[in-house]
Amino acid sequence: MGGVYLVQGGAPCLKRTTFTAQTILSNPRATEARRRYTEADLNRCFTSASLSTPLSADSPYELRRAQELNRALGPKGGPGAVDVICDLHNTTTNMGLCLIGYSTRDWICLHLYRYLQARAITRQAAPSKPEQMPSASVRYLVFEEGEEGSYSLESMAKHGFAMEMGPQPQGVLRADLFFQMKQAVTHTLDYIELFNTGTVFRGGGVEVYRKVCTLDYPRDPHTHQITAAVHPQLQDRDFCLLSPGDPLFLTLAGGETLPYEGETPLYPVFVNEGAYYEKNIAVTLAQKETVLLPPMSVQRE
Amino acid sequence: MGGVYLVQGGAPCLKRTTFTAQTILSNPRATEARRRYTEADLNRCFTSASLSTPLSADSPYELRRAQELNRALGPKGGPGAVDVICDLHNTTTNMGLCLIGYSTRDWICLHLYRYLQARAITRQAAPSKPEQMPSASVRYLVFEEGEEGSYSLESMAKHGFAMEMGPQPQGVLRADLFFQMKQAVTHTLDYIELFNTGTVFRGGGVEVYRKVCTLDYPRDPHTHQITAAVHPQLQDRDFCLLSPGDPLFLTLAGGETLPYEGETPLYPVFVNEGAYYEKNIAVTLAQKETVLLPPMSVQRE
Repeated sequence: MGGVYLVQGGAPCLKRTTFTAQTILSNPRATEARRRYTEADLNRCFTSASLSTPLSADSPYELRRAQELNRALGPKGGPGAVDVICDLHNTTTNMGLCLIGYSTRDWICLHLYRYLQARAITRQAAPSKPEQMPSASVRYLVFEEGEEGSYSLESMAKHGFAMEMGPQPQGVLRADLFFQMKQAVTHTLDYIELFNTGTVFRGGGVEVYRKVCTLDYPRDPHTHQITAAVHPQLQDRDFCLLSPGDPLFLTLAGGETLPYEGETPLYPVFVNEGAYYEKNIAVTLAQKETVLLPPMSVQRE
Repeated sequence: MGGVYLVQGGAPCLKRTTFTAQTILSNPRATEARRRYTEADLNRCFTSASLSTPLSADSPYELRRAQELNRALGPKGGPGAVDVICDLHNTTTNMGLCLIGYSTRDWICLHLYRYLQARAITRQAAPSKPEQMPSASVRYLVFEEGEEGSYSLESMAKHGFAMEMGPQPQGVLRADLFFQMKQAVTHTLDYIELFNTGTVFRGGGVEVYRKVCTLDYPRDPHTHQITAAVHPQLQDRDFCLLSPGDPLFLTLAGGETLPYEGETPLYPVFVNEGAYYEKNIAVTLAQKETVLLPPMSVQRE
């Protein structure tokens, strides 16, 4: 709901000297129904294959809408696509503020990440009283899918990323997260203005989390119903290292602890995300890497 | 999801020497869709008027289901209705464990409340390691509607109550809350067994919260969209006294604080509940009362 309300009436100033940003409500029908989607998950409809699928009378609303957005903002992968998309998201998980991108070679997105890390983006306070927060509270997650495999809205842009913020239940607007998102969007627009006006962003290392795999809930083989919940010792601990043998699930019938049986320690993200039960994802596991950023500035023409 | 998974495979032992409890999934179609309801809010379909409405081809699924349940468990207000219904609920709000009833004259429910207060119902630990929790974490909320006005499922029983537990996002199962619910249900069944076998429950005072009124979000008069969120200083502070002048809302466009303008301090509950945006309820306000319970024991026949 954060992005929805930001677009519907709470947006920060979108005008800078070098550009004016545009806001778009990506799924108006789902917004009206206060749901993630109505017939198909819009945020999985932006693969090259989906965007080129011929539409029929039976096509889900969201596929139709994805192609409409691709005509307006894309075409994905084409020279006419928009420069930047910042896709605003909320999660039920305790991921704080996290940028999600498809590549560690998109310097525009990674320099933005570093720029946000250096800003004070506060969660708790009213907008009049921002409090400093440790920069570690902004993180960057990489879902390396390649252009063909990339499935989400921001993949239409030359430089797209999702801004994920949580925890917030679906259908709920929390003021603290809303104003944190508003600040992060303002900083993003400032950053683009700085880039456009010739600022040199210095090089250096940044830490990112790269998706390695996902784990499903234990399920009944016949009914497919889940038989264990995310363990209380893992719940809410996104980005806290999970080591082999650590508690992973707790069975519903017997209260038995099932440990993480992977071979290497990894970082859990999207821990018990409400929207991912249907996608058979209880936890996504990631590894931490350092990416060396080159210095960056706009190319003078 | 707590009640759903409890019924679907995680229920505690339902058998005691004097009775066996029965579990029912009240809204299977909504469960399948992982939503609160599909066509009408089931938990508003149990008024005497709704239960006696003739069904037509256009009747919502939930009205049909309510009448079906009333045939199985009621009829509401009739001598053949079941003795006790414990309706399991989760809330996105920080209400902890809270029983909700329609009356302060239902001694069966109020003695149960007191019985639960004296038990250790823990939220954090795995079931093997229960930790003591202060008894104040169980609360009792009274929605005095009278038999005609009572609208929720448990109103079909001679002694019905809802067991509300939060915070948990919709569509998510949290292990900590799940096992807390399981413990509370076990204690409820134990209590009924103790009652049935002649235990004398001593009299005394209990504190309850009685609903006084509800407040809606500030809204745009034309679009009806909300223009302010629950204030961060009120968010998550269910059952913490709200006094005149305290921050109530924060406007989305300008970040302006709107204070509580009531004349008396009251206790907020269901603060920013996800399911109540559509019901125009941002906060429910309640007053605290002490109810004097008489001693109680089963009547020997």
